[in-house]
Amino acid sequence: MLSFTCDYNEGAHPAILERLLATNLEQEPGYGFDRFSLSAKDRIRKALGREEADVYLLTGGTQTNSTIIAALLREYEGAVAAATGHIAVHEAGAVEYTGHKVLTIPQKQGKMEASALESFLDGFYAEPAFDHMVFPGLVYISFPTEYGTLYTRAELEALHAVCRKYNLPLYIDGARLGYGLMSRSCDFTFQELAALCDVFTIGGTKVGALCGEAVVFPHGGAPAHLFTSIKQHGALLAKGRLLGVQFDTLFTDGLYFQISRHAIDMAGQIKAMFLKKGYELFLDSPTNQQFVLLDKETMAALEGKVAYEVWEQSPDGRTVVRFATSWATTPEQIAALEALLP
Amino acid sequence: MLSFTCDYNEGAHPAILERLLATNLEQEPGYGFDRFSLSAKDRIRKALGREEADVYLLTGGTQTNSTIIAALLREYEGAVAAATGHIAVHEAGAVEYTGHKVLTIPQKQGKMEASALESFLDGFYAEPAFDHMVFPGLVYISFPTEYGTLYTRAELEALHAVCRKYNLPLYIDGARLGYGLMSRSCDFTFQELAALCDVFTIGGTKVGALCGEAVVFPHGGAPAHLFTSIKQHGALLAKGRLLGVQFDTLFTDGLYFQISRHAIDMAGQIKAMFLKKGYELFLDSPTNQQFVLLDKETMAALEGKVAYEVWEQSPDGRTVVRFATSWATTPEQIAALEALLP
Amino acid sequence: MLSFTCDYNEGAHPAILERLLATNLEQEPGYGFDRFSLSAKDRIRKALGREEADVYLLTGGTQTNSTIIAALLREYEGAVAAATGHIAVHEAGAVEYTGHKVLTIPQKQGKMEASALESFLDGFYAEPAFDHMVFPGLVYISFPTEYGTLYTRAELEALHAVCRKYNLPLYIDGARLGYGLMSRSCDFTFQELAALCDVFTIGGTKVGALCGEAVVFPHGGAPAHLFTSIKQHGALLAKGRLLGVQFDTLFTDGLYFQISRHAIDMAGQIKAMFLKKGYELFLDSPTNQQFVLLDKETMAALEGKVAYEVWEQSPDGRTVVRFATSWATTPEQIAALEALLP
Amino acid sequence: MLSFTCDYNEGAHPAILERLLATNLEQEPGYGFDRFSLSAKDRIRKALGREEADVYLLTGGTQTNSTIIAALLREYEGAVAAATGHIAVHEAGAVEYTGHKVLTIPQKQGKMEASALESFLDGFYAEPAFDHMVFPGLVYISFPTEYGTLYTRAELEALHAVCRKYNLPLYIDGARLGYGLMSRSCDFTFQELAALCDVFTIGGTKVGALCGEAVVFPHGGAPAHLFTSIKQHGALLAKGRLLGVQFDTLFTDGLYFQISRHAIDMAGQIKAMFLKKGYELFLDSPTNQQFVLLDKETMAALEGKVAYEVWEQSPDGRTVVRFATSWATTPEQIAALEALLP
Repeated sequence: MLSFTCDYNEGAHPAILERLLATNLEQEPGYGFDRFSLSAKDRIRKALGREEADVYLLTGGTQTNSTIIAALLREYEGAVAAATGHIAVHEAGAVEYTGHKVLTIPQKQGKMEASALESFLDGFYAEPAFDHMVFPGLVYISFPTEYGTLYTRAELEALHAVCRKYNLPLYIDGARLGYGLMSRSCDFTFQELAALCDVFTIGGTKVGALCGEAVVFPHGGAPAHLFTSIKQHGALLAKGRLLGVQFDTLFTDGLYFQISRHAIDMAGQIKAMFLKKGYELFLDSPTNQQFVLLDKETMAALEGKVAYEVWEQSPDGRTVVRFATSWATTPEQIAALEALLP
Repeated sequence: MLSFTCDYNEGAHPAILERLLATNLEQEPGYGFDRFSLSAKDRIRKALGREEADVYLLTGGTQTNSTIIAALLREYEGAVAAATGHIAVHEAGAVEYTGHKVLTIPQKQGKMEASALESFLDGFYAEPAFDHMVFPGLVYISFPTEYGTLYTRAELEALHAVCRKYNLPLYIDGARLGYGLMSRSCDFTFQELAALCDVFTIGGTKVGALCGEAVVFPHGGAPAHLFTSIKQHGALLAKGRLLGVQFDTLFTDGLYFQISRHAIDMAGQIKAMFLKKGYELFLDSPTNQQFVLLDKETMAALEGKVAYEVWEQSPDGRTVVRFATSWATTPEQIAALEALLP
Repeated sequence: MLSFTCDYNEGAHPAILERLLATNLEQEPGYGFDRFSLSAKDRIRKALGREEADVYLLTGGTQTNSTIIAALLREYEGAVAAATGHIAVHEAGAVEYTGHKVLTIPQKQGKMEASALESFLDGFYAEPAFDHMVFPGLVYISFPTEYGTLYTRAELEALHAVCRKYNLPLYIDGARLGYGLMSRSCDFTFQELAALCDVFTIGGTKVGALCGEAVVFPHGGAPAHLFTSIKQHGALLAKGRLLGVQFDTLFTDGLYFQISRHAIDMAGQIKAMFLKKGYELFLDSPTNQQFVLLDKETMAALEGKVAYEVWEQSPDGRTVVRFATSWATTPEQIAALEALLP
Repeated sequence: MLSFTCDYNEGAHPAILERLLATNLEQEPGYGFDRFSLSAKDRIRKALGREEADVYLLTGGTQTNSTIIAALLREYEGAVAAATGHIAVHEAGAVEYTGHKVLTIPQKQGKMEASALESFLDGFYAEPAFDHMVFPGLVYISFPTEYGTLYTRAELEALHAVCRKYNLPLYIDGARLGYGLMSRSCDFTFQELAALCDVFTIGGTKVGALCGEAVVFPHGGAPAHLFTSIKQHGALLAKGRLLGVQFDTLFTDGLYFQISRHAIDMAGQIKAMFLKKGYELFLDSPTNQQFVLLDKETMAALEGKVAYEVWEQSPDGRTVVRFATSWATTPEQIAALEALLP
């Protein structure tokens, strides 16, 4: 059966597996001091053009968010997020488990608006009893958002400016970073994103790796003893080489961005194909997730032959469904999908 | 340079990498619902002869200990461990980070004696103000211990009996489980170990995997919603297949135990070789770690050619050093080591 | 200067101070085992007509909420509250500090509607990925609410029914319980409130005590070893008699309810006086807090002579202000206020 | 029945109750901004001769320890304490509940020796894998200790010097501070103690108050937003005046020290009386707790007439018991005790 359900349903990009195989017998120290991890961090710094950046490699997304957010906050502080933010909804309360509230504010298509953030922060300090409340300690956004939408450069600059005004670190969750940066709609670069935040993550799991998220403090200044905090949060791999080899490969010859661009291109082909066949898009998504309205007849035709994610029911009887692409999606798969459509 | 510093300095057993390669393009659901994870859990249940066992796959050792221990304890409870227990010393306070005290009791060569445990528990409840103190909520031991020593069947039975008397779960940290079970000194089986505890882990990272620990509740009865707790602790992999493929391979045709036996055999060759050459052992270790006393002349001869772990200084001027073996250790490496000894 | 700013600006009801004085030299055990605490708990049980009730005496409101909520929840669970709930907004993240998320749902004048709760709970379990989210573990409401509003009996029954349907404990924060129960608008009794929840608190601090909140599990079934949890949360007083004497006095001859009724009556006089003088009420409050619209002239006349709480600006240029009453408010004070109004 | 079981079995010193009565109707703001709290803090600063000191008033001892320790530590840090330290044993894991390990080191009669501390800290940083372990983040001692013993000035200076060497705050738990400072054996003053630490507490509960501990940062530099942390830990009283009035009274005309001296004097009379009657002391205690060896005949004679704390059995058949004194102990009570002795 063809599947377009998600971007983490296959294994790793072949280059990663080959590299794991090629380096398997090399004896290297544990806990991230292996030469692959050191090289990976160096390649990320070079890709950013920032010698001063601090880079850490962790295993998973929720783990990374809760570990890094807890390390950045003092006990009386919380993380400000859009109401739809991943940490606010889909991480099983991992941030709260570390003792910190997620302070949610209204969102628009998954995005936090600078005006909404400023209004929240102004309001907080205008509240006479604010010291009976959780202090905003950092601002969390995701790029792309949980809705697959993207911040523009102007929006990111505006958020960054509000964070500067209130002296709050801006944290960008890049679980699908590559798909955002390689989108045709994105109007800024990897380097520019780094300049506009205090810490961001480079998601590996959903962009061709078996697992792994890189955490980057682009201006340096990672929290003291973050290595120990990572261990304390259960986020330190003994065989750190597993992460090192993967990120070293992903940041060799721009593979991370090639993988991302490939998935974006495949998503573009899916979109074009559906439009050509007369289907309606639910929204004009700029990333590797396409949302299409399917009627009952189409769904019956695909039944048992193509897997996709059901998103929600449309009032008109049709169903909004999501088709996601990854490094492994091929034009042949898309042609096969097309052939199955009525 | 030859290295015997640890058992996690190489990558994975080749069978694991081959399997990752062979299954890479198969599309499988995330979060541990892939067919490899399901099969791995099934193979572990079969190896134990226990249909009723609950099995979970996590990524790392500290993560597994703190996640599972927190899920088993109520807020007023702590984990009883030997003073040298891994959770008490070398996990950066991961258990305390979840709000639970590690209650330490005296140890003997890394082992907790049943009498020491009973005396601690008797003493706790004899203390008039015990409800001003942290309640013992489970008993944690490691097998092999942090000193590479092994419990005998009688010792384990005795600990188990004390736990039953006080109705406390017995948790066995098996980060190097295979090396314990495959040791010539071990007088019980995998199945018997399972019968004598309430939960144990099967360490993958140090026994041939890239990462991964299996958690087994041999009698069932895993804590409610442990899946969510695992997510909350940042211990849930999106591509759970990475763990599934590894444990499925390790528990196919007894690979896990073959790997362990191989390392034990190589450790035996190292021991025999040193004794033959007239060196003295620091202690008669039954597992894959051998502790030898080296004089200055020998250390000078090995300098830059063989890596090992310095353990401690002996009062007589010699140095206690550790040689560890793994799935990747070869007789040729041992011969090369021998050739370098004066 | 006259002050109507809050209900905790004076000390304790004189009967409490007299009792502290009268019993001061009696030697009693610590930690709540003194005869006053035992008697207080007994009087509360009798007032409820419930021998089976478990009663605990703690010191403050935020402390009580976070201690009891944490004791009731498992680590994967959170507390469901109205978005305006005290635990959600004004307790400095005390609940999150214990590792638990406060799950907020929409409110109406500070109240949680049964339909909103049911819709939230239905939605939670309808969400395919609910086990990646924080489980609802209890429902928190306050009576009176943070807006001074009251649940009707029907509303409370409806909330209770939804809690039963989902098997969730219903927790009622009664920091100002007396003012709710003694309001002319309240259509249920103390005993009926107890029947309709699983745990509630009887606020002492704001109803005539120096400090202290009683926690009542009306059907018994307090969490195991709650005494130890209370100690662990720093909520156990060595001289528990301080709480015992106060609650024993408050529940002798119905003093708690007399104090509450007195404040309600004084608030009624304030309301009547303002209406008589032609002032407009901001809302028709049923409890000891009255919200009045004052024009600039009036505010100038009261300046420096009467203290009250400024609530918010009205668009028409007037100001919404709050006058609160307590056990210590006298008709003379109200007459003095009247005399100062233009 | 006469009772010498503890120093918190009566209510408050009469001067405190009188002051509560006298100020009861004064309307004051809540949360510690009342004039009594402001005055109390000022008096403590004056008694120390330190304008720069930061002072906070909390309710109980365990609460104070866990709140302040958590505010001082970063997440990767723990509190170093003697193995017998109150936080290590008798606070139900309150410090661990905030996520921090209590790192215990050997003690001598309840005291931490500077050499033991230095050896622990030297050892920690000498350990190659120290960043896999909990960092020492502050040093906790109690004065008097849990065994009623006292540090000498030289011992305190030595501990302070080690703390300076490692840049660790020294925290002194003074739950019974007055009894230490007023002991005839104490060779330093209140002001000198303040100079030799970074934060200390002035216990009120056991020295004549109904409740309350003052926390003093003698050199200023309290953690940022400690007010909010105190609220978050459930340690903020709405009627802060209860603490304010008590400490204001205790630090007027040296009442705190008079109370302490009185208890010390009464303990001295008890000691003298027992020695005169030929009884043996278990240890020569310098504070308000006296440990005496009683034979069976004496215990029978006191049965039902005098209450005291049974400490432990002596191998010779006698029993070690403790007689404690407080502000309320009178010479008449001691005479009555003497009259009952055989």
